[in-house]
Amino acid sequence: MNNRQAILFSRPTGVAQAENFAIHETSVEPLATGQVLVRNEFLSVEPAMRGWIADRSNYSAPVPLGTTMRALAVGEIVETRHPDWRSGDVVTGWFGWQEWATIDASAILRRVIETDLPHSLALGVLGLNGVTALVGLTLVGEPKAGETIVVSTAAGSVGSAVGQIAKILGCRAVGIAGGPDKVAQCLKTFGYDAAIDYKTSGLAQAIEAACPSGVNIYFDNTAGTISDAVHPHLAVGARVVVCGTASVQTWDPWPTGPRFARHILVKRARAQGFVVLDHLDRWEASVTMLADWVRTGRLHYEEDILDGIEACPDALAGLYRGENKGKRLIRL
Amino acid sequence: MNNRQAILFSRPTGVAQAENFAIHETSVEPLATGQVLVRNEFLSVEPAMRGWIADRSNYSAPVPLGTTMRALAVGEIVETRHPDWRSGDVVTGWFGWQEWATIDASAILRRVIETDLPHSLALGVLGLNGVTALVGLTLVGEPKAGETIVVSTAAGSVGSAVGQIAKILGCRAVGIAGGPDKVAQCLKTFGYDAAIDYKTSGLAQAIEAACPSGVNIYFDNTAGTISDAVHPHLAVGARVVVCGTASVQTWDPWPTGPRFARHILVKRARAQGFVVLDHLDRWEASVTMLADWVRTGRLHYEEDILDGIEACPDALAGLYRGENKGKRLIRL
Repeated sequence: MNNRQAILFSRPTGVAQAENFAIHETSVEPLATGQVLVRNEFLSVEPAMRGWIADRSNYSAPVPLGTTMRALAVGEIVETRHPDWRSGDVVTGWFGWQEWATIDASAILRRVIETDLPHSLALGVLGLNGVTALVGLTLVGEPKAGETIVVSTAAGSVGSAVGQIAKILGCRAVGIAGGPDKVAQCLKTFGYDAAIDYKTSGLAQAIEAACPSGVNIYFDNTAGTISDAVHPHLAVGARVVVCGTASVQTWDPWPTGPRFARHILVKRARAQGFVVLDHLDRWEASVTMLADWVRTGRLHYEEDILDGIEACPDALAGLYRGENKGKRLIRL
Repeated sequence: MNNRQAILFSRPTGVAQAENFAIHETSVEPLATGQVLVRNEFLSVEPAMRGWIADRSNYSAPVPLGTTMRALAVGEIVETRHPDWRSGDVVTGWFGWQEWATIDASAILRRVIETDLPHSLALGVLGLNGVTALVGLTLVGEPKAGETIVVSTAAGSVGSAVGQIAKILGCRAVGIAGGPDKVAQCLKTFGYDAAIDYKTSGLAQAIEAACPSGVNIYFDNTAGTISDAVHPHLAVGARVVVCGTASVQTWDPWPTGPRFARHILVKRARAQGFVVLDHLDRWEASVTMLADWVRTGRLHYEEDILDGIEACPDALAGLYRGENKGKRLIRL
């Protein structure tokens, strides 16, 4: 049986391009003891992949050249040599950008028990994105009812969940997104109280107008000039959840910007980095909570689905071109 | 009875100079009900005064032009019209840069009960500086035995206490200071495990060499280029106590520097602003602890004492020239 894989062919300088990946055809590997064979249904495309393929030291080891691209996926177990797992189990985990994954059971992140909902959600609002939003917001952001929260990439997979969860928790949610379509999506689909287009001029003034009492929580998915405009509006005691740096194209050479320390000091603010994989112990309870909100219509999501393994090479570059509206996935 | 006061004469652009202050002679104000008259013994000179006299929004209201410079002082009550306070009480509080202070009792920060120790300590190691070091380090820094802490302005009034308290708590302490004299003072007087002169080249390499397992806590009194050199060496889970920005001469125009967000994210670090006046509830217990360490010789301090109210106008500028070795005070 043949297996097609998207392998990392070369390391990008800056943002990954399609030519950094190649489609490789090989046989499905036979199972060793302790392994399972997963038929992937959906592959994830994450902004964080930029870090996984960079040469520079990072919060995860770099993907070796010539190997299957590291990726979360969801699929069904079709063969098993591990006593805890059975054929027919729907699972999500580190199965890579490939059609068939012969993996150690340790690569499974969890069994998908929400089989009443689309399996693809395990990669988005019931997966990395939703859990990032929920745990990052509650654990680091510590929201209190009545507080004002600003979210960058507000219409994105993480951001849209952050805004909606903040609303569920009684906060006022202000989104920052790029372009009129995403701003409209923030207001109509995701229920933000206000949404700001960072591509128009006067971003700082728009933030000030939308947050007359200052910003109590800033959920920062972008860093860069968007965050520069938010920081002066932090309220005393503000919390900044540093979750991503999507707006910064490259860290080599390291970019400069307005110094942040003075805002942190004067506002007695707290800026804390958040990587959800540090919090696997909170995953199961978080997914249960998120799935309930999805079922009861309180938590909306958007998906942007590409078809076939051939879509992998350009999928990440397209994410950075901002062409997706919702969680980007590849359906096999 | 005459009273000499150092008044704020004009607002500095950048660092305050002697000409921004003037000595003014007036009569001691008579006491209203609820007031006490304090004969100031020592006046404090703080780096934070730069913020108090700036026009720009800050964490405390600006000192109005033409009024006595806001300052902590220690002295003895010589007359009282408040039932809680008696003549002969040694007190510290917001008495200003003047010889005699007619003040509401609410301006008293505390009664100095450590009268076996020099009264001047109430303005340094048993006052704002020592309490800042102890509460900032323990509450925000959360030190654990065996961790490595880096302190900027390591020989200063706050920094020297931070380094020594970190050692008492079982940490490895690395100081950053300016010039060979201060580096020697760090090693000999304050017991740092290593000390680095930021004025020599190779600061980043020196930090790396002194902190082979990374920096678990950075107690940041300087911001600016010194902090830029520390940030890349933060360990995973590091805490940055943002306590001062002494190395940045002015925030108008706002200076730029290497972006901090990526380090915060990749190291899942936490940077938090600390202003000790938010934590007055911890003052009494903190001073008791600090006084015990002073009495048992575990906590050393240096003082830099100028004489007479005439010394006030140039005292702050001198602090920014780095001419003091220890807590700068004015003895009346």
